[in-house]
Amino acid sequence: MKPSNQKIADALVAVRTTHPLVHNITNYVVMNSTANALLAIGASPIMAHATEEVEELVDLSGALVINIGTLSKPWIDAMFKAGRRARSRKLPVILDPVGAGATRLRTDTARELLQQVRPAIVRGNASEILALGANLAGTRGVDASHTVEQARQAAQALAQKFGVVVAVTGPEDFVTDGTREARVRNGHALMARVTGTGCAASALTGAFAAVEPDAFVAATAALVVFGLAGELAAQGNPRPGTYGIRLIDALDEISPEQVLAGAKLA
Amino acid sequence: MKPSNQKIADALVAVRTTHPLVHNITNYVVMNSTANALLAIGASPIMAHATEEVEELVDLSGALVINIGTLSKPWIDAMFKAGRRARSRKLPVILDPVGAGATRLRTDTARELLQQVRPAIVRGNASEILALGANLAGTRGVDASHTVEQARQAAQALAQKFGVVVAVTGPEDFVTDGTREARVRNGHALMARVTGTGCAASALTGAFAAVEPDAFVAATAALVVFGLAGELAAQGNPRPGTYGIRLIDALDEISPEQVLAGAKLA
Amino acid sequence: MKPSNQKIADALVAVRTTHPLVHNITNYVVMNSTANALLAIGASPIMAHATEEVEELVDLSGALVINIGTLSKPWIDAMFKAGRRARSRKLPVILDPVGAGATRLRTDTARELLQQVRPAIVRGNASEILALGANLAGTRGVDASHTVEQARQAAQALAQKFGVVVAVTGPEDFVTDGTREARVRNGHALMARVTGTGCAASALTGAFAAVEPDAFVAATAALVVFGLAGELAAQGNPRPGTYGIRLIDALDEISPEQVLAGAKLA
Repeated sequence: MKPSNQKIADALVAVRTTHPLVHNITNYVVMNSTANALLAIGASPIMAHATEEVEELVDLSGALVINIGTLSKPWIDAMFKAGRRARSRKLPVILDPVGAGATRLRTDTARELLQQVRPAIVRGNASEILALGANLAGTRGVDASHTVEQARQAAQALAQKFGVVVAVTGPEDFVTDGTREARVRNGHALMARVTGTGCAASALTGAFAAVEPDAFVAATAALVVFGLAGELAAQGNPRPGTYGIRLIDALDEISPEQVLAGAKLA
Repeated sequence: MKPSNQKIADALVAVRTTHPLVHNITNYVVMNSTANALLAIGASPIMAHATEEVEELVDLSGALVINIGTLSKPWIDAMFKAGRRARSRKLPVILDPVGAGATRLRTDTARELLQQVRPAIVRGNASEILALGANLAGTRGVDASHTVEQARQAAQALAQKFGVVVAVTGPEDFVTDGTREARVRNGHALMARVTGTGCAASALTGAFAAVEPDAFVAATAALVVFGLAGELAAQGNPRPGTYGIRLIDALDEISPEQVLAGAKLA
Repeated sequence: MKPSNQKIADALVAVRTTHPLVHNITNYVVMNSTANALLAIGASPIMAHATEEVEELVDLSGALVINIGTLSKPWIDAMFKAGRRARSRKLPVILDPVGAGATRLRTDTARELLQQVRPAIVRGNASEILALGANLAGTRGVDASHTVEQARQAAQALAQKFGVVVAVTGPEDFVTDGTREARVRNGHALMARVTGTGCAASALTGAFAAVEPDAFVAATAALVVFGLAGELAAQGNPRPGTYGIRLIDALDEISPEQVLAGAKLA
């Protein structure tokens, strides 16, 4: 049920040739690095959060990425407003529930976005997905970091309940739409030493969802391509400052041929 | 009527020797990269937006740069407050109308800033300048990306109506004060692959306007120097992550001699 | 009275082995570079500012860093709320009074934070420390940039009045708790050519304060390690863009042995 390598390579080519506009309502920490990741893969980033204009920008965009990394009230309003507009326009929405489980504000906001906006894809780490799925699948509250395997059940429950593709990222990524499953074994440990790589994964997922209508394929493709870029950037074992720059370089360099040869999917 | 290469080289030396303080009210995406660009050229950046303090900071500064890239209501208030103070102190104001034409909020805010603050220089891409100049010069609304040549008429109309220097940047830059014209052919295609290079151009224009009283010369000088840095950084054809870092390096490296020999002005 | 090199090396090892969570309420300009500096040294950064959640995040953290670089009213509220919670939990608070002395908003906010939050450590440049210490030690208002030596008296007065460790950074750093004194001669002139290095010093101080209960030792250790990283990064005399990246690399590379051999303390 995993997507073929060819489908993933095709999606990369589609991003590079159509340059989809990806509207991000994201956190302050990663705005610059996320915009550069999107530019490097071939997409066009917009970062904007004013309630007065988010609907107009959604109308121009191919996907909307909502990332709750540095929440505050006015931004939450913009997330719901933009999210509802995207939903009514059948635009794919990607939700990154950063820190869900760590504070009530984040857990509650992520859950309400899930219910009211009905994103196409949720991408988070294991603890975040467990926090969203608590009370759904016999999972318990988040009080420590978790493995992707621990979050698998919560991911499936969320996928089935909300009709959403859930991507749990970690040393091995797990993607499910409630029926199909894929495991992505691309990536590199250095990715966790640079701030905002999870956020970049979500933004890249937006770029792929803008060109690939099957959200399960789009989410898997984004994680394979980003993971491969992470491997490419790690050549020569650079330290984290240099690695962060090479990761952007690698998103520009990664070729469809490298995807066909290097995708590690199960 | 274009400035001489010597004038441009002299302006660069003036920035490097006087380290002008440039107050930026700019967008979240580029605050870090803009501050580093200003430091690299030899200026001193301040980033601040609280209405409670912007007037005091304007009083300390040599130029004010207003960039509407991630607008919201409190920031708009600060832009007007700081802009009016700068105008009353005869401090040069540079307006970067990011995304004018894309949403009403941006178009309206940029137009009102133009009318009420009367900036010395507006720097934007062709679509943004066309959006500001619509209804002025027979131009129509913005519904696609435009060439610099298409924006030339709007730029001249804006310059004449508001007494402002208009700099339209793109593969070739066009600068006019309504009477004089200059075309800057420096630069490199890689500049468009890094987020915030347009914003950096506006901020650097602030640094030059702080040391060169003729705003037409200042705007042209900033674009020549930044374009040359863009060429220097492109040596060896780096990928976009590395290129963004080398662009900062090149702003530090670029010499008055390189300006004299390399400026491509018409 | 200065800490031994061994104590400093031990503190570095403690940061690397315990990965303390450092909660930052900091400015927009440096959020990304600060998070990367903390990750590189081995700590775990959290950036968050919503009044609805800062207390919960303080409860998870080993230190709180308050940086007033891009102040506005809602952020000030969060700083006081988080600061009071940290104080009540006996969590070390590091205050970075960016721009104190430049505007009333900054000077007043920094002074009130000092009085109400009672941080463990204040880290600023000479002008900022003089602004905080004005009227305390016969110092006068800030109207120019100052040397660390000029700020020494103000630092001691502040330390004694508020029971706070004061770290004044510059070409030579000065640290005092009102009784003990240390001078740190590590560092490199290139550090001033990259935005946010002062902010990174404060954030790293948070990481050290989370693992070393003696705030005087923690502040001195952070400045020695960061200064040594600054020296390491300067090898080959890179330009400022490259230097900023190597500085992150160096925070990852610097070893306890290099601290033992290279600390320049008096």
